[in-house]
Amino acid sequence: MESPLEKALTTLVYTFHKYSGKEGNKLTLSKRELKELVKNELELGEKIKEGDIDHLMKSLDRNSDQEIDFKEYSVFLTTLCMTYNDFFQEDKK
Amino acid sequence: MESPLEKALTTLVYTFHKYSGKEGNKLTLSKRELKELVKNELELGEKIKEGDIDHLMKSLDRNSDQEIDFKEYSVFLTTLCMTYNDFFQEDKK
Repeated sequence: MESPLEKALTTLVYTFHKYSGKEGNKLTLSKRELKELVKNELELGEKIKEGDIDHLMKSLDRNSDQEIDFKEYSVFLTTLCMTYNDFFQEDKK
Repeated sequence: MESPLEKALTTLVYTFHKYSGKEGNKLTLSKRELKELVKNELELGEKIKEGDIDHLMKSLDRNSDQEIDFKEYSVFLTTLCMTYNDFFQEDKK
């Protein structure tokens, strides 16, 4: 049986493919796909503006191919995770 | 309401603290805590041997302080996530 940790990892992978499969290369996120993912899957996404997405895309797209591959997406999640962790530690203080 | 992605990120943070809080520094994993986390939360953990844990600890402990901090744990999760993704892509072939 899947543990909560394994289920969480599966969700991270599944969420990427839910959007990467929509258009163009099925194994990478275009800017439009990244925008949809952020808007639909993250609370902060509701308030995000076009300029923020441009900025996010540029900072994640390490190899500058205008697509976010799974490795680049993982870096994004790690950053999010560290922000969540900071909140968690603040909460416990 | 929390999305599945947000819930997954919370689980990653929560799982770390569930073990890091057991002994010593509450914000890092000792080797013993890492071992418990891997054994209890990952299927591969059931078959893992003491030598494997030594090896894992060494490879994750970038700053060689004998403790795994949250950033080092995130690197571990990223690696796991990329392995899951490889399986996922193989499955779809």
